[in-house]
Amino acid sequence: MAITEYPSRLLENAVNEFASLPGIGRKSALRLVMHLLRRNDADVERFGESIIRLKKEVHYCRVCNNISDTETCSICSDTNRNNALVCVVENIRDVLAIENTGQFRGLYHVLGGIISPMDGIGPADLRIADLEKRVAAGGISEVILALSTTMEGDTTNFYLYRKLSPYNVSVSTLSRGVAIGDELEYTDEITLGRSIVNRTPFEGGRQQ
Amino acid sequence: MAITEYPSRLLENAVNEFASLPGIGRKSALRLVMHLLRRNDADVERFGESIIRLKKEVHYCRVCNNISDTETCSICSDTNRNNALVCVVENIRDVLAIENTGQFRGLYHVLGGIISPMDGIGPADLRIADLEKRVAAGGISEVILALSTTMEGDTTNFYLYRKLSPYNVSVSTLSRGVAIGDELEYTDEITLGRSIVNRTPFEGGRQQ
Repeated sequence: MAITEYPSRLLENAVNEFASLPGIGRKSALRLVMHLLRRNDADVERFGESIIRLKKEVHYCRVCNNISDTETCSICSDTNRNNALVCVVENIRDVLAIENTGQFRGLYHVLGGIISPMDGIGPADLRIADLEKRVAAGGISEVILALSTTMEGDTTNFYLYRKLSPYNVSVSTLSRGVAIGDELEYTDEITLGRSIVNRTPFEGGRQQ
Repeated sequence: MAITEYPSRLLENAVNEFASLPGIGRKSALRLVMHLLRRNDADVERFGESIIRLKKEVHYCRVCNNISDTETCSICSDTNRNNALVCVVENIRDVLAIENTGQFRGLYHVLGGIISPMDGIGPADLRIADLEKRVAAGGISEVILALSTTMEGDTTNFYLYRKLSPYNVSVSTLSRGVAIGDELEYTDEITLGRSIVNRTPFEGGRQQ
């Protein structure tokens, strides 16, 4: 259904705004806007305000570039965390994903992207100089590169590895292999191949 | 991925608001909010404002209850339309759907729902009295009931038919049958059965 004419400009504006979001077409946008129209005034105002305030008032941590309500984010200012361990990620969603595992108690460094010549993103567009400064300042023993397993991710990994090699810091990456719960039959051949080459010793019942 | 802790209250608020919309989970909500964060300030402010303004400033047409920027909607105030013909629909999306066909040049009446005892919606919750008043005022020759083909829709049709029977107005409903482009094999048996019972004369190459 190609919606050509709306009975209201206000409706049209709101639909256009929702339809500008990724993965939301005009029909879904209309459904969302209709839903908002049925809510009460205070609810809808809070919705709109939350978006405006987020953009206006949000900070990015001056240490790790993570999203924050304060100058330094809650992770960087948490004294219970291991500040000798820094995990380098592409974006904030990766921070949330790793935090959700509950397996990492170090700090982060959010690059804001990965090196991608096709998209015109070079090292200077990312927070790489800041990372180098953090490492140069000392106190960091290990940098974990947790970037995408794509060609761009590999390129960025290699670039970062070269940048950090002058410093006394060990550089690691996430282990690659068959995902837990996956059936071998459906694992792609590159992942399966690498997981054979990089096989790990069997540790009783609990295998990493 | 169950996201438990956000690094920012502002982020969390915005994610919560998006996740409160139908069909948007917390993961999609985060993706949408992250997208907004990458846009420029003016864009995001316009997004938020469009929602707040829509809810605050929108009108519902005093004649047909359609959404409108003015007291009377653009359809009701269009003198080129046939105001003797009124199409009764459940909601505003149905108005848009019928307008998109380009096949109807009459006016509408938006009920705001259908009679549904299960959801606690009775005739008094809908714009039925208004419809009766419009018909009683005269000038309307035909009322087309364009409601859902569900039990609730059928109930509402019957209720409206009874309400309108004292007036000199013909009442019709949309034709039911096999959808254009559908294969018989995949048409449900009730629709197929009705379409045989209510078969129409074959009009040369062009069949309704």
